[in-house]
Amino acid sequence: MGQTGLDQDLVARIASRLGIRGLVVDSNEIEPYESSARHGSGRACAVVRPATLEDLAWVVNELITAGERVVTQGAATGLVGAASPTVDGTQWILSTQRLRDVLHIDPINRTATVAVGFRLSDLNRQALEHGLTFPIDLGADPTIGGMVATNTGGARLIRYGGVRENLLALRAVLVNPAGQLVGSDKGLRKNNTGLDWTQLLCGSFGAFGIVGRATVKLHPVQRQSATALVAVESAQVAVELACALEQSMGEFVSAFEGMSDGALKAVAHHQGQSVFAEPAPYAVLLEVSSAVATGTGLDLESMLMTWLENRMEQGGILDAIVDKPAQLWRIRHAISEAVQSQGPMVAFDIAVPRSSFASFRDEAKRLIEEFVPDAVLCDFGHIGDGGVHLNMSVPLDTKSTAIESLRVALYDAVVVKFCGSFSAEHGIGPYNQQFYDRYTEEPLRRVCSALQSQLDPALQLGNVRLGGVTVEDWPNV
Amino acid sequence: MGQTGLDQDLVARIASRLGIRGLVVDSNEIEPYESSARHGSGRACAVVRPATLEDLAWVVNELITAGERVVTQGAATGLVGAASPTVDGTQWILSTQRLRDVLHIDPINRTATVAVGFRLSDLNRQALEHGLTFPIDLGADPTIGGMVATNTGGARLIRYGGVRENLLALRAVLVNPAGQLVGSDKGLRKNNTGLDWTQLLCGSFGAFGIVGRATVKLHPVQRQSATALVAVESAQVAVELACALEQSMGEFVSAFEGMSDGALKAVAHHQGQSVFAEPAPYAVLLEVSSAVATGTGLDLESMLMTWLENRMEQGGILDAIVDKPAQLWRIRHAISEAVQSQGPMVAFDIAVPRSSFASFRDEAKRLIEEFVPDAVLCDFGHIGDGGVHLNMSVPLDTKSTAIESLRVALYDAVVVKFCGSFSAEHGIGPYNQQFYDRYTEEPLRRVCSALQSQLDPALQLGNVRLGGVTVEDWPNV
Repeated sequence: MGQTGLDQDLVARIASRLGIRGLVVDSNEIEPYESSARHGSGRACAVVRPATLEDLAWVVNELITAGERVVTQGAATGLVGAASPTVDGTQWILSTQRLRDVLHIDPINRTATVAVGFRLSDLNRQALEHGLTFPIDLGADPTIGGMVATNTGGARLIRYGGVRENLLALRAVLVNPAGQLVGSDKGLRKNNTGLDWTQLLCGSFGAFGIVGRATVKLHPVQRQSATALVAVESAQVAVELACALEQSMGEFVSAFEGMSDGALKAVAHHQGQSVFAEPAPYAVLLEVSSAVATGTGLDLESMLMTWLENRMEQGGILDAIVDKPAQLWRIRHAISEAVQSQGPMVAFDIAVPRSSFASFRDEAKRLIEEFVPDAVLCDFGHIGDGGVHLNMSVPLDTKSTAIESLRVALYDAVVVKFCGSFSAEHGIGPYNQQFYDRYTEEPLRRVCSALQSQLDPALQLGNVRLGGVTVEDWPNV
Repeated sequence: MGQTGLDQDLVARIASRLGIRGLVVDSNEIEPYESSARHGSGRACAVVRPATLEDLAWVVNELITAGERVVTQGAATGLVGAASPTVDGTQWILSTQRLRDVLHIDPINRTATVAVGFRLSDLNRQALEHGLTFPIDLGADPTIGGMVATNTGGARLIRYGGVRENLLALRAVLVNPAGQLVGSDKGLRKNNTGLDWTQLLCGSFGAFGIVGRATVKLHPVQRQSATALVAVESAQVAVELACALEQSMGEFVSAFEGMSDGALKAVAHHQGQSVFAEPAPYAVLLEVSSAVATGTGLDLESMLMTWLENRMEQGGILDAIVDKPAQLWRIRHAISEAVQSQGPMVAFDIAVPRSSFASFRDEAKRLIEEFVPDAVLCDFGHIGDGGVHLNMSVPLDTKSTAIESLRVALYDAVVVKFCGSFSAEHGIGPYNQQFYDRYTEEPLRRVCSALQSQLDPALQLGNVRLGGVTVEDWPNV
């Protein structure tokens, strides 16, 4: 089809209803929508940008009835390409960026109902006025819709859970029947009346329907926190430290982030100064926090200091820096950029049970040595919840076949040997489709196929397939 | 069919594999399995009791292949009849009570993998040895399987969430293909690879498959708590108090239970002494707790006292009793029995957004006055999460038609006017089937039908229907 093949009647109808800001057909203006943050770029035939839930339903009906294919896109901050169009230029991008018709905070119910075009930062700015927060903590600032579709996790999942655990209701538009608006804005923590759209659509990566509005739990905002950067002897000691911290500091633990020697070195090089006085084999950033203000008898900073001092007497800790949280988080957040500044980067987003983390990491090092021997492992991540970003710098001339071989071997080790996940928090997009197909058990894919057949029988939606069809069946990926 | 019509070859095969403890065919021995805690009793043709996951898969294959119908039952503590056989004696009961082949705590990963025949108390006894707990707090002591199938909530959901938020993986046996074992024991907090069996089976009330094993999050055990029983001017003040408590005490808030004047009077009469010096229009039991031990600088008892004193100066609080937690919880837990001791009891398990709780309660009183004017409302419940058990004592000669009319009017008010739920935590069973059919939107039921067709095409499983079939289509309810 391509842009020149656009159905001009359809274009005219959409332009008439959505207005000049609601439709993009000029290829230069389309281009910014065609790539996403890491993997995935393609060509779109046009972009539609409805601004209300009603217009969303209307335009989905128009597009689907006309036989068009549609990929939904929020802020395009995802890392697996799920919001990018396919390469053949046949898909319309349905951008939710203007879908900002409702942002309602109910402070008594401690919930927010929010149109999906709002960003995480928008929601939190509003929530803060009521002393509340939506506590999903991410490096990016995605739209709420992208967060729901991706089931985002982040650095504070250890305390608050991810999107799924905080999603109470949603309103969505189906493609079968085309443009059917479903769901609710019900802010109910208890509602035990069977499956609902939250279970079916959250974490389905745009394959089953288009989310237009979400109702989420809010939490009292954090009023004090204490943070330490701790150098430890090994990844195994880091995991033991996580358990010890949880047993002593319980519900206060809000982040427990790991950083390998490679990651620390990359940051040191990038920032021009080393993090610890002596190079550390492994380090953790640990954070405790509370919604209870200081001056109430709770002083997390002194509590953490006492705990650290006691713990250091037991060995395994090499050094500890207690500093302003922002200062220490800056080091943590610098890792990704620092690694990228070293040259080409390869990244895997995996998770294993915390109890297997250290032994998995040994296995990963062995596999990297085997497949890409000159890679420098700079892994870091949310080891408190078992997630790790297995990022590495690789030489410029590294063959992509070697990287793909490593990826296959690593994912096999993660999934089969260590009972882990090949996509801890980034989700499924074209980048991960073949591994979804490989590791998802057949009976589950049959069930997903039944859902797919019901919800999108003509495969008009998105660019991932959760059902039983194979990659080959999926046109034009 | 009935017991005399039992397929004797099938019986012989099952007896041979499962042994004498694995099969019950004597009608006297079957009888204890035929009723559940509140609503629901029927007749079963036999009971099978597999003791391992493999035997579970085997016996499901045998029964389903032979064309039998099966209802799964744990401890039969549910309140909507979902574990009871139908009245016609054609169903086999699949009891999970002996299914106790695995109870593995991973203290490093803070998870438990547990066969579904274990009780909540069994799991918590084991977890406690590691300083951990599975924090779903219930009046009953159900099996883990019943909890997963029902997605139980309870009194501490406000802090920890319900089963769904704490369920990481499960292993289940499907009836299509018959006896197919699916799922995993993966204890992953982050695993963002599409829908899995937890989303599909948890809270599906036995309609889509039979859960054999669950892997759940554990939390550090509570090491201190402080509890107060507070008399307030109205339900509205109670809700405002919940918000104020959360803003001051944040993550410590672990329970916020409401008790109406009727509930308080019932308890006073039952226990022979009044709870407060003066009768209270409404009261709340509030609990703050922490995994952090006393002697670390955190003293919740004095923190709560200080907060209460400050709060009392602002008005709305009539009286407050600070006592041993066990003492105050005893009052809360006495309500149900106290109300039942007054004579026939009618109970509705509903939820509304907390912000609508007081106005909903006014509407409920008006409806009760209209339909069952002599009822004495003794409502209580988890108002911190919006849930309320709208229990009432009714005169002995109350017509069941009046109660049903009240139920219809109340549920309509809850669902349509107050954006609430007609089953906050008890779930869907035959007792609630007609209301599920009434309130579940058609597109969602179509999706559930697609799931049903895939997972149980011949309707051999359970006694609720989440799909698109109507009550009339369901044989023999």
